[in-house]
Amino acid sequence: MSYPFLKGHGTENDFVLLPDHDGTTHGGLSADELARRVRALCDRRAGIGGDGVLRVVRTAHLGVPADGSEWFMDYRNADGSLSEMCGNGIRLFARHLVDEGLADGSAPIPVGTRDGVKLLTVDGDQITADLGTPRVLGETLVSVGHLELGARHVDIGNPHAVTFVSCLDDAGPLLVAPDHDPDVFPDGVNVEFVVRRGDRHVAMRVHERGSGETRSCGTGAGAVMVAAAVADGVARDEDVTYRVDVPGGTLRVTWTVDDRVLLTGPAVVVASGVTDL
Amino acid sequence: MSYPFLKGHGTENDFVLLPDHDGTTHGGLSADELARRVRALCDRRAGIGGDGVLRVVRTAHLGVPADGSEWFMDYRNADGSLSEMCGNGIRLFARHLVDEGLADGSAPIPVGTRDGVKLLTVDGDQITADLGTPRVLGETLVSVGHLELGARHVDIGNPHAVTFVSCLDDAGPLLVAPDHDPDVFPDGVNVEFVVRRGDRHVAMRVHERGSGETRSCGTGAGAVMVAAAVADGVARDEDVTYRVDVPGGTLRVTWTVDDRVLLTGPAVVVASGVTDL
Repeated sequence: MSYPFLKGHGTENDFVLLPDHDGTTHGGLSADELARRVRALCDRRAGIGGDGVLRVVRTAHLGVPADGSEWFMDYRNADGSLSEMCGNGIRLFARHLVDEGLADGSAPIPVGTRDGVKLLTVDGDQITADLGTPRVLGETLVSVGHLELGARHVDIGNPHAVTFVSCLDDAGPLLVAPDHDPDVFPDGVNVEFVVRRGDRHVAMRVHERGSGETRSCGTGAGAVMVAAAVADGVARDEDVTYRVDVPGGTLRVTWTVDDRVLLTGPAVVVASGVTDL
Repeated sequence: MSYPFLKGHGTENDFVLLPDHDGTTHGGLSADELARRVRALCDRRAGIGGDGVLRVVRTAHLGVPADGSEWFMDYRNADGSLSEMCGNGIRLFARHLVDEGLADGSAPIPVGTRDGVKLLTVDGDQITADLGTPRVLGETLVSVGHLELGARHVDIGNPHAVTFVSCLDDAGPLLVAPDHDPDVFPDGVNVEFVVRRGDRHVAMRVHERGSGETRSCGTGAGAVMVAAAVADGVARDEDVTYRVDVPGGTLRVTWTVDDRVLLTGPAVVVASGVTDL
């Protein structure tokens, strides 16, 4: 059976989009069958390749509360597992909705996710996702190779350990997950290695649990900005914006006075077609 | 500018196909522009992803001798550089021609390449490429990690060093090119690590010069079969066939009595569409 797909990325975090507006194209699959299809699509050699799959379905066709969202992002990781949210993925999702005339880009777009409704704002080629309120938690330790490093625990929907290093090469090849405290992170953790590049400007590498090193991580960029702002002792009486360079591009992160993290950057669809994977 | 593409693979050696029958879609690009487009297409995060690009053009529209071939495979590596031939790529090329009705699969199909015209035979889901006559050369040494290994030098359009190991893990992670004798291989070499799996049945891993470890290498499978047949002292008074397992699947290689190497295996198109990369 052939079905339509698109491929795109946000700062080189890449995804296969599956239009399935009324849920009839993929909605009839069992959980196992859908997981198998996601793995086949994300396979970078035998498939199309991607860090995950974004199924584009009208909220009305799912048994979930709409909360004002016409569209729902059914996100799955490359291994077929479910995930609540993806900061770069949802920015690409909004790009697609506006490109196809499925949403009006002149106003914020509510998009349903398993982590609730998120607001997306499209401004030219820049797309902003509201990642919600961060939780700044304690200090912890991570280690990579022979280096043991102090890190800030930040939770922004998922857990992060942010460590400031003198050079991004300090993290080494990142072929295995950095060691971390299993009492603090019983379900694993994304680890960000950060250097300062200037005033309110940092650069990062990230090791994502379950994925390894990636070219970009939206919630990771958010966690990094928050940790940097806390370390810099930035006053929170107005919105604060940092530039965060990732291996796949540049993001901007704003921590608002009402304690929300806004992730802004480009997202682009590069191909569309049909597949029978 | 949007233009059509397809993606497919042969034993997980994957390629972007660019239909350009009369040469007007991509033929007007300068060499630098075309190299840039190939790199963008093959980028596995920001593009579609592939080990190379196969431009599908009628031989009549190129300034090269047709030698009976209606179609020419303009093959480029993922880094944009030109290459003469690709054993798995040309099998996918033939699959595409037959799928689209551009060639009659009931007879061998001549396909032009920079290494001359190759004959392709399609039999159901199995596609055979005639890789030509191998040259069995001397013994040489390669080393990987702390292991120094004797290897057979086989040339099959490009140079190979085939080494028999006790276990495919002996090759280690293969993150860097195995050391080799620069006097024997001044332009580098593809190195195959081989174990025996049974009678006329081997399994291999390969490190390709310029690409690193790949899931499959068509000429590499051919070189491995020839080296194994020589090592086994197989009589050459009839066609000899070996099964060669690669990480991405299974190939069969036949060394004919008239001294040609035939590479047989599956090749499949998995997606088609348009892109503006």
